[in-house]
Amino acid sequence: MAPPPEECDAGLAARRPISSILIIIAMQTEAFPLVNKFQLSEDTERSLFPKGVPWVRYHGKYKNLSINLVWPGKDVILGVDSVGTVSASLVTYASIQALKPDLIINAGTAGGFKVKGACIGDVFLATDVAFHDRRIPIPVFDQYGVGARRTHDTPNIVKELNLKLGRLSTGDSLDMSPHDESAILANEAAIKDMEGAAVAYVADLLSVPAIFVKAVTDIVDGEKPAAEEFLQNLVAVTAALDQAVTQLVDFINGRCLSDL
Amino acid sequence: MAPPPEECDAGLAARRPISSILIIIAMQTEAFPLVNKFQLSEDTERSLFPKGVPWVRYHGKYKNLSINLVWPGKDVILGVDSVGTVSASLVTYASIQALKPDLIINAGTAGGFKVKGACIGDVFLATDVAFHDRRIPIPVFDQYGVGARRTHDTPNIVKELNLKLGRLSTGDSLDMSPHDESAILANEAAIKDMEGAAVAYVADLLSVPAIFVKAVTDIVDGEKPAAEEFLQNLVAVTAALDQAVTQLVDFINGRCLSDL
Repeated sequence: MAPPPEECDAGLAARRPISSILIIIAMQTEAFPLVNKFQLSEDTERSLFPKGVPWVRYHGKYKNLSINLVWPGKDVILGVDSVGTVSASLVTYASIQALKPDLIINAGTAGGFKVKGACIGDVFLATDVAFHDRRIPIPVFDQYGVGARRTHDTPNIVKELNLKLGRLSTGDSLDMSPHDESAILANEAAIKDMEGAAVAYVADLLSVPAIFVKAVTDIVDGEKPAAEEFLQNLVAVTAALDQAVTQLVDFINGRCLSDL
Repeated sequence: MAPPPEECDAGLAARRPISSILIIIAMQTEAFPLVNKFQLSEDTERSLFPKGVPWVRYHGKYKNLSINLVWPGKDVILGVDSVGTVSASLVTYASIQALKPDLIINAGTAGGFKVKGACIGDVFLATDVAFHDRRIPIPVFDQYGVGARRTHDTPNIVKELNLKLGRLSTGDSLDMSPHDESAILANEAAIKDMEGAAVAYVADLLSVPAIFVKAVTDIVDGEKPAAEEFLQNLVAVTAALDQAVTQLVDFINGRCLSDL
């Protein structure tokens, strides 16, 4: 029997329909289509965030959901998107503190591994996340460095939406060194990004469920250099990401955490 | 002529004596001697930080200074120190927001390069910081990844205290891959740690001056494996660090930022 719309099964926190989601996106090119799609407005006069940080919040109402989309903004000195784990963890922390969301969606582009079935334009939902560039060869510290964790369980999203499933590995480099490659293999990753595991770490610390939607811009184990392929496909693949996130948000609307 | 104790030269912010310092330390073994030395008390009942995070604040009055020492604490699941750039940037951000310090001291242990004159037990003051494991081979993004910045200028500390000077390179691994090595060479680093450049990034974003005091536990370009040498020397070298930070805090007491 399907639960009535105002009540859900499972634990206390999961019993009411999701009302507030926080979408975290690292690059402006990835963020803009979704800002337009959900008709979100930019915080301009009174920012949630302290003076000096380039972080940008867009917000609005979409169906029954309050949506906040946060992008770490352009580096204050260099003018490029503030990608990577440090910025991602900071905006995740500050946004959770200010907004107390029910659910985080970390959306973005990623490199894909063809040996794990990834093709350019595929959109993946990550089952697990881990880091591949935090090697600390001391017992237990090694596990801390890898920081593997499962993402929020979403069996119904998997059933309903046409997304590939796979493990996500995160590191602060766009390229892949031989050391990174071994670690990514050990993480059994199908996709590789520069933020996911950091967002997951902070979300876990503050007990906010998080899911990870990543669209493949470049094939890491292919012939072309990652940077070239990434730039070539960024805009086109962002359209696939846009569509997947919209489907996901439509699915989330009216549902409880335990129904995802 | 020496300035009278209540007034200092230079800009507005630098014109009054430093009253509040924030010491950020990644490991418990490094933090404890200083907690004892400055007779700091642990925050127990009402933490500054949100529920769920393992971050620990010690605080107290030492001479004319209000000292806060923040340690990212033990990983909630694994029980090891929360080392690395993600935790360091989070505690730096949250501590600046809560405490509005005049000055940050990031103290800790580091690997040293003998080609740059580093020996075990040396205490370095970093002139510059940069990352060595954030390779983004796209114009301008490459510079963002390296994230090089100068630390707060301290000509009088350099004159007065017996510290070596050198550049600090930061990465999330304790070991050093060939890719890391090239980047560390490019950064012209004498020492290598796992937090400094992340602390500097956040301090810069929020306009808090920061200095970096690092004691050498292991020689990276030597014969022994870093992890083994690090564990062997950690406690002894921490005593040297303890002494240097105490001298530094004694020097800071009563002075303005522009006098450092």
